[in-house]
Amino acid sequence: MNVFLIHAHPEPKSLNGSLKDLAVETLTGLGHAVQVSDLYAMNWKAVADADDFPNRAHPDHLNYAYESKHAFLGGTQRDDIAAEQAKLLWADAVILQFPLWWYSMPAIMKGWFERVYAYGFAYGVGEHAGERYGDRFGEGNLLGRRALVSMTVGGRESHYTPRGVNGALDDVLWPIQHGMLFYPGMAVLEPFVVYQANRITPEQWADIADRYRARLRGLFTDAPIPFRRQNGGHYDGRQVLKDGLGGGETGTRIHLVQPGDPPEYPLPPR
Amino acid sequence: MNVFLIHAHPEPKSLNGSLKDLAVETLTGLGHAVQVSDLYAMNWKAVADADDFPNRAHPDHLNYAYESKHAFLGGTQRDDIAAEQAKLLWADAVILQFPLWWYSMPAIMKGWFERVYAYGFAYGVGEHAGERYGDRFGEGNLLGRRALVSMTVGGRESHYTPRGVNGALDDVLWPIQHGMLFYPGMAVLEPFVVYQANRITPEQWADIADRYRARLRGLFTDAPIPFRRQNGGHYDGRQVLKDGLGGGETGTRIHLVQPGDPPEYPLPPR
Repeated sequence: MNVFLIHAHPEPKSLNGSLKDLAVETLTGLGHAVQVSDLYAMNWKAVADADDFPNRAHPDHLNYAYESKHAFLGGTQRDDIAAEQAKLLWADAVILQFPLWWYSMPAIMKGWFERVYAYGFAYGVGEHAGERYGDRFGEGNLLGRRALVSMTVGGRESHYTPRGVNGALDDVLWPIQHGMLFYPGMAVLEPFVVYQANRITPEQWADIADRYRARLRGLFTDAPIPFRRQNGGHYDGRQVLKDGLGGGETGTRIHLVQPGDPPEYPLPPR
Repeated sequence: MNVFLIHAHPEPKSLNGSLKDLAVETLTGLGHAVQVSDLYAMNWKAVADADDFPNRAHPDHLNYAYESKHAFLGGTQRDDIAAEQAKLLWADAVILQFPLWWYSMPAIMKGWFERVYAYGFAYGVGEHAGERYGDRFGEGNLLGRRALVSMTVGGRESHYTPRGVNGALDDVLWPIQHGMLFYPGMAVLEPFVVYQANRITPEQWADIADRYRARLRGLFTDAPIPFRRQNGGHYDGRQVLKDGLGGGETGTRIHLVQPGDPPEYPLPPR
């Protein structure tokens, strides 16, 4: 299988760098093909701006989404953007490796999503009319791929438990896992997390590496997070969860399929 | 009073640009002093990297947090970073103006937080020992300031309701409002949001402007979101919410003070 690893850390000798190297070694050893986009090493352009569109539809007023659609459909995207899209389409699984900075991914990786996720490629896909609001959240051009967040965290694990002061880990990662990965159709696995990442001893690293290798071995077999598909029948025409679903939960967890829920509609043929 | 507006949109003639201009005009008219950091216009350096530290403590291994502490305490920060910190300290209120891109702020603004929020300035503040995990979440160097997120959203309002497919608005904004604004001590107001921002008619703009002016008039009087303070007595020594609190809620809403909760400890004298 093909694995695309997107890596964002400025120090190659960091824990993130070690996890990236371990993933490449482990996955290659398992017989997979691996491509890595090391965003800092590539000097990735982080800011979505007018320079992304040498051939503007509207030179006098920049609407980034509109220009990204124009460039994507017209084949005038910048090479750096098109190359990353090709890697996503090549991949059977996508891994994000990053340190959690201010409860989100580093800016350089956020800018990767803003620029690579063009209108027509990652959003604005499918019919938008009446009760239909596109092919997204479980459908889209990246359907059939798996996604894994592998990250390091400075704080303690207790801070990210369901009652921890930072918010539950799945709430902190909601914009990323649901909003960026599930949105264009990827099946998202439980994240791999190393807490208190600034205090890792050699003994702890051996344990971390063992845990991560196990997760990498399960990349194509572990059960994904059961996010509800937008067009799976659980949401109404305003994309609001139907009455009777999500009982017993509030917050983001209402958007997980729960035991006893009616089965989702099958995916349409592609 | 002093208001610091941080603006992130690449097109001055955009709806975000209009909201920024309206805020400056309205706040100035109310007698406030206003400073604006227009990140795109400033060509703000979005990526946190080694170039931020001309005077490295450890030239051979970049730990961004450690070097930011070294630069902050040693007075060797880059001028662009120190200037933004000075604006934060000058301000009585901070407004973030941005389009919601992929369920978060634009990369250029995320990079502003990564670079300006130095160790010792915005985190790593206060005692970290035993059950004490710093002055954060309601305490810190930005205590006494108010914060307001003003943002535009492409999708429909129903998508961001408590049962909407994108997740509730307060969950989507949790990493920003709780994790970036409340963290160093600011009191966070309810966000000001314009939905379906790509379809605004002149009549709608008049209404939006009226609504925003009303929010700006309330900048120093509206009640903030009642996030619990980390050191207010509601969390235990692992920074986990104590038993008996948060009843009836799950997810991020357990971290709001609720009627009937015991009063929080008073803030320590400064």
